Amino acid sequence: MTIKDKLAERAGRVENFLEQCLHDKGVPNRLFAAMDYSLLAGGKRMRPVLTLSWASMLGGNAEAVMPFAAGLECIHTYSLIHDDLPAMDDDDLRRGRPSNHKQFGEATAILAGDGLLTEAFGLMTAASIVNGVPADRVLRSIAVLAGAAGAGGMVGGQVVDMEFTGRDGVSLEELRGMHAMKTGALITAACECGAILSGAAEGDIDNAREFGKAIGVAFQIMDDVLDVISDTETLGKPAGSDEEMGKITYPSLIGLEKSKTLAGEYIDGAVRRLSGQSGAEQEFLVELARYIVDRVY
Amino acid sequence: MTIKDKLAERAGRVENFLEQCLHDKGVPNRLFAAMDYSLLAGGKRMRPVLTLSWASMLGGNAEAVMPFAAGLECIHTYSLIHDDLPAMDDDDLRRGRPSNHKQFGEATAILAGDGLLTEAFGLMTAASIVNGVPADRVLRSIAVLAGAAGAGGMVGGQVVDMEFTGRDGVSLEELRGMHAMKTGALITAACECGAILSGAAEGDIDNAREFGKAIGVAFQIMDDVLDVISDTETLGKPAGSDEEMGKITYPSLIGLEKSKTLAGEYIDGAVRRLSGQSGAEQEFLVELARYIVDRVY
Repeated sequence: MTIKDKLAERAGRVENFLEQCLHDKGVPNRLFAAMDYSLLAGGKRMRPVLTLSWASMLGGNAEAVMPFAAGLECIHTYSLIHDDLPAMDDDDLRRGRPSNHKQFGEATAILAGDGLLTEAFGLMTAASIVNGVPADRVLRSIAVLAGAAGAGGMVGGQVVDMEFTGRDGVSLEELRGMHAMKTGALITAACECGAILSGAAEGDIDNAREFGKAIGVAFQIMDDVLDVISDTETLGKPAGSDEEMGKITYPSLIGLEKSKTLAGEYIDGAVRRLSGQSGAEQEFLVELARYIVDRVY
Repeated sequence: MTIKDKLAERAGRVENFLEQCLHDKGVPNRLFAAMDYSLLAGGKRMRPVLTLSWASMLGGNAEAVMPFAAGLECIHTYSLIHDDLPAMDDDDLRRGRPSNHKQFGEATAILAGDGLLTEAFGLMTAASIVNGVPADRVLRSIAVLAGAAGAGGMVGGQVVDMEFTGRDGVSLEELRGMHAMKTGALITAACECGAILSGAAEGDIDNAREFGKAIGVAFQIMDDVLDVISDTETLGKPAGSDEEMGKITYPSLIGLEKSKTLAGEYIDGAVRRLSGQSGAEQEFLVELARYIVDRVY
């Protein structure tokens, strides 16, 4: 089984849960439709897959952790809906379909995002209340996730990104800091929470967090690289759009080759964090990390 | 001490906590300013006061519960910011000052709301992680609150409210249902979570929830009544604006006198839920309930 197949299989398991995790009881039809529309719009389900894999590798019960992992995907989805809004990035398309506000109107899109963000935390509690994961582990994970998704993390990163647009002289350090907040924090929390929920030792929780940080940076670098070297068909969005929009990227700051080398170094760092582990989940996480860079070639 | 003084004193204690509950570390200045601007814009702090009072009355430690109560106020505040947005109610003013998007722009206002909603759940975890309230109580309270604030509660109520606007033939039952979601659910959860956090018996948790439901309805009825009978100066916003906007209200459906009688009946029902209790907190909650109707005269 290739890593692509493995990823698809795991995404499928998450997908099955996502399809029935939102309840329409007492929810206005239009709102439910809007939340469902974006939550079930596909995607690699990378964040929940990471949570489940880290939890399994460290002795946790992936099935019990599933609602928490689904909550992470709800948070990721809400962030995409709000980022696409006219007042933000003003994107009409998302994954080849009309973005949420194009399909349901701006007011409903804002509220669908709010609903998904709120529902996310309800889902997380179910890992304990319904599935019996100890309450203190879930509570600590919620704290980690709220920090990662909030004003000092993902939400703050969006503000910094907006401030960069059109600004001259953004440094590599600033770029890295922005991405660490905007996309890195949630990926990092996905790994860290998987470890926390499994009841792992503090050292393993540290490893999960540092693994997440490293693959988050590598992922962003390779996204920038792909935008330069891919053709539009492979990419699924217009290639070269970053350059066209004057976006500050790793290739624009340090060049293409150095970007790829840097991403590889981050991945090596991530893989080292797995050296104390073994078994199928460890193997999967190593392959997943390598795939982030290798998918380019 | 009058009930107004008592309310003000308790609001002041909440205020003191709110002033230092958001941390600016790693948060972009502009985002932090926008969150702070709305969170510290005043207000009666009714929801956190209810949580603290129910927790105290049932033997809980109000100080330990404070971060959870502050989280409730963050959720209330985020909902005001998003409701005021151009795509929603498009209000330029809130509590006599420019609304958040007028002050900071639409993108920042959306993100300030997102930040406050996310931060809210982080604060709630602190009731356990920092202050030692048992984790299972906090987790159950988060579940209750996520339900009340989400798509089947507050967020859903906003959608239903938008659907009512301009629609003919909304029934009393539909109006009550909408308010129960839009404003009632959070007030109800404030009381219920206070009881849960104190470790109360299930019967007392039921009483807290039903008390909250009843005062929530009475509060909404009297808000509608006040809009009719007050002058603009007393009200702090244009009196008679509901009628002018063609809004469906209790007075417009059943008349002024019947509305007041109905509110009084809900308050009587709320007070009956306190009959098994005694002491200063019980007295305060009785007075608070009565005040919802009596503030009119």
